[in-house]
Amino acid sequence: MFEAAEVGQKLSKKAYSEREPELRLALVNAQYDLQATRSPVIVLIAGDDRPGATGVLNQLHEWMDGRYTRTHAFGPPTEAERLRPLFWRYWNVLPRRGRVAFFLGSWALSPLAARLEGQMQAGGFDRWIERVTRFERALAADGAVFVKLWIHLPKHEHEKRLAKARKKQGDTWRVDEVDWRICDNYDALAPLAEELLQRTTTPEAPWQVVEASDARHRDVASAEHVLDGLEQAIALPARAAPGPPASAPAPTPSVLDRVDLSAALARDEYKPRLDKLQRSLFKLANRADEREVRTVLVFEGWDAAGKGGVIRRVTHALDARDYRVVPIAAPSAEQLQYHYLWRFWREIPRAGKMLIFDRSWYGRVLVERVEGLAAEAEWQRAYSEINAFEQELVEANTVLLKFWLHVDPDEQLRRFQERERTAYKKYKITDEDYRNRGQWDAYVAAVHEMVERTSTPDAPWHLVPANDKRFARVQVLETISDALKQATKKRR
Amino acid sequence: MFEAAEVGQKLSKKAYSEREPELRLALVNAQYDLQATRSPVIVLIAGDDRPGATGVLNQLHEWMDGRYTRTHAFGPPTEAERLRPLFWRYWNVLPRRGRVAFFLGSWALSPLAARLEGQMQAGGFDRWIERVTRFERALAADGAVFVKLWIHLPKHEHEKRLAKARKKQGDTWRVDEVDWRICDNYDALAPLAEELLQRTTTPEAPWQVVEASDARHRDVASAEHVLDGLEQAIALPARAAPGPPASAPAPTPSVLDRVDLSAALARDEYKPRLDKLQRSLFKLANRADEREVRTVLVFEGWDAAGKGGVIRRVTHALDARDYRVVPIAAPSAEQLQYHYLWRFWREIPRAGKMLIFDRSWYGRVLVERVEGLAAEAEWQRAYSEINAFEQELVEANTVLLKFWLHVDPDEQLRRFQERERTAYKKYKITDEDYRNRGQWDAYVAAVHEMVERTSTPDAPWHLVPANDKRFARVQVLETISDALKQATKKRR
Repeated sequence: MFEAAEVGQKLSKKAYSEREPELRLALVNAQYDLQATRSPVIVLIAGDDRPGATGVLNQLHEWMDGRYTRTHAFGPPTEAERLRPLFWRYWNVLPRRGRVAFFLGSWALSPLAARLEGQMQAGGFDRWIERVTRFERALAADGAVFVKLWIHLPKHEHEKRLAKARKKQGDTWRVDEVDWRICDNYDALAPLAEELLQRTTTPEAPWQVVEASDARHRDVASAEHVLDGLEQAIALPARAAPGPPASAPAPTPSVLDRVDLSAALARDEYKPRLDKLQRSLFKLANRADEREVRTVLVFEGWDAAGKGGVIRRVTHALDARDYRVVPIAAPSAEQLQYHYLWRFWREIPRAGKMLIFDRSWYGRVLVERVEGLAAEAEWQRAYSEINAFEQELVEANTVLLKFWLHVDPDEQLRRFQERERTAYKKYKITDEDYRNRGQWDAYVAAVHEMVERTSTPDAPWHLVPANDKRFARVQVLETISDALKQATKKRR
Repeated sequence: MFEAAEVGQKLSKKAYSEREPELRLALVNAQYDLQATRSPVIVLIAGDDRPGATGVLNQLHEWMDGRYTRTHAFGPPTEAERLRPLFWRYWNVLPRRGRVAFFLGSWALSPLAARLEGQMQAGGFDRWIERVTRFERALAADGAVFVKLWIHLPKHEHEKRLAKARKKQGDTWRVDEVDWRICDNYDALAPLAEELLQRTTTPEAPWQVVEASDARHRDVASAEHVLDGLEQAIALPARAAPGPPASAPAPTPSVLDRVDLSAALARDEYKPRLDKLQRSLFKLANRADEREVRTVLVFEGWDAAGKGGVIRRVTHALDARDYRVVPIAAPSAEQLQYHYLWRFWREIPRAGKMLIFDRSWYGRVLVERVEGLAAEAEWQRAYSEINAFEQELVEANTVLLKFWLHVDPDEQLRRFQERERTAYKKYKITDEDYRNRGQWDAYVAAVHEMVERTSTPDAPWHLVPANDKRFARVQVLETISDALKQATKKRR
């Protein structure tokens, strides 16, 4: 892979000065056209030639319109990043649709250093490759275009540069210890780098190796690749119009039929059990904080199934500094500028803390599927994207619990009518609730497939009988307590 | 102050069950009406009764519509917060207009603990009081309403609770070591707390001391105060319509007249000086990182004065992981939901890093003043709010440098015409640029007053002759280098 980038490509001053103004104009025009599309363009700039990568970045900054680009250079992780799943730092800074972001360093490089220093076994490397390709594929499926530049210098050029740096000659004041180590370990590093590139190059996101021995060639070639990426994004077809709502009949029996809605708890049994569970949860949450075990709770369920009430019984057992509740509704105009998982990734809390989602990313395969707000191709691929997301959480030491609160249609209607009658509950009942009721069977079908395709050993679905509110609350608190006991048992 | 909250206020079960539904309805209705206003409502919940404060919070969560409230409980600062000015953590989570946020703990309490443990001298306490009152006043002037609740338990009630906790009786499993310390140090703490409340209570943001011995009274009284705050916000007059643009004549001479626009640098002198300055800046930036000295650079100036080019000469000397450039334009719809300084506060980087603002908060007193986008009352108060903001930065170990790049109208026209002629520069010239030119004198007046009112010893304005681009670049780099040398000289 690297041999093709060691052939001595050069660009004369004359050719450069002819090409430069055309390139600048094309880049700026392409940036403008990009703004009307739904594609973010992510330019990864990596390479064994770190000063060269910075040079490319600086040149792109000069040639493009900086008002519409952002640059993120990834150094050692901050505390906030260390306390979160690895890819959180990238999700946090993804560009919005129609914009360009430059990522210097980033996920491309991290496994190399680790592998070199023997810190990452081959198995870990494989897992990394898998995560990278899934991450890029999910974004590309949503319209993102990647431009992946590997800025490459042949070994003898590295040695020449370091010789100059040793004598403090020329433009070498940027050279630092990492560059020395790259040169010293070149023979071990190059094959690892090539393997990384080969295994993470994909049709939608291929690596471009740029020969960096001649700076003019390096910069123009890089810019040409960026221009290609912009043009590719501009040429992408518009998003498929979401079709009519899915109309598959509800399977019989469905997973929901197996939920025993007669389950109930007497009041005089409920109070002491709730009290005991809340005290226990308070202690377990503190233990989770000490052991740096993160907790993410997801609550889904029928309208009026009692999600709010269950959540409050959980939070009343916790210290307000250790949890947050995030209510989820239809995505805002801002949130639609990103992949649908973006807004959930950003909420992931630090290790040791708890986050409660009141509705969640499952909206993609529930309301968006049933109401036709997402095209079938979109919600169909959501199942595996969700599983990949949840796997990242669990691998990062997260207790992830997913609850579907189940009631029957009669109980739901009873509660709707009670809300109508109670003045301060009126805001909790709208036409939409009644319309959703009309889609009961479509929702059953959606929930059935959701459980079928996203209930995994590490993150199973808990279907909670919620006709009786007391039973549901105790059941949920017990499930959380058991999971936290389990997760905080092993000493770190 | 506390005696009035030790009179034994109680609420019977009957009175409570009559009042509760009315209160809930009023709160929810008020939340709805609030959404149409420009007022964020910030509810601070503090007090010597920490379990009581949590109880109030939980009850408000139940009584209000949680889709439109956010809660922030402030514990020990995270690394991100420690590496930034103290108030950054609060600016970062302010609610938007029309929404409510609960702040548990927060700026009210931090000086108490420090003072108690002798860590904060009386002078530090005075400075804290000043910052708090300025912070609240700036937000209130922008339409925010504060509800400040101090949840208070008389000493004998604290002792009673701890006695129960010792015997593990009743509802005392939340009680922790901090509560013990509060009780043990009650006699020293209470006068300090009263002093804090008296000195930070203001007409626009008064403290309400809530007697907490009876939980029903505590919760209803707190909710009544929140309701009052919501109704106060709803009753606020709409924002004054921004008037016609300011039409004061340009003072003669103005500060800009003193700038020597004939200053120039020959090319053969420029290249070696620039090179030397960039190497030096690279080292100084690393030293600043080690010494945890933050750098914030602000670039303002006439259109086409060369801000972009100067900024690139600075960034070419830096490691991409240690700086960011933030281009500032008219505030977005999202940003208008907050105080105008909010978007700048959020960008403040960690200690040791550099942030470059390409245009800045000075837009308030420049374009917004000249074009009448802000009412006169708004830009008039901006000068002191800006000074207070900059003082916070400087006190948090920031090198803050403000540059106005100055050209004369003929040079500006020459550059406009050059942009028209050069294809890839055309995007950099718009009708707006020509319209701004028509307001030259109004801008001179605005710049003159800006320099007059916001050039402080800690953060002076640097007026840079920029007719000659080379001179301007070298001048700016020298100013930055000198400032960093000075700031990193003293050992921490």
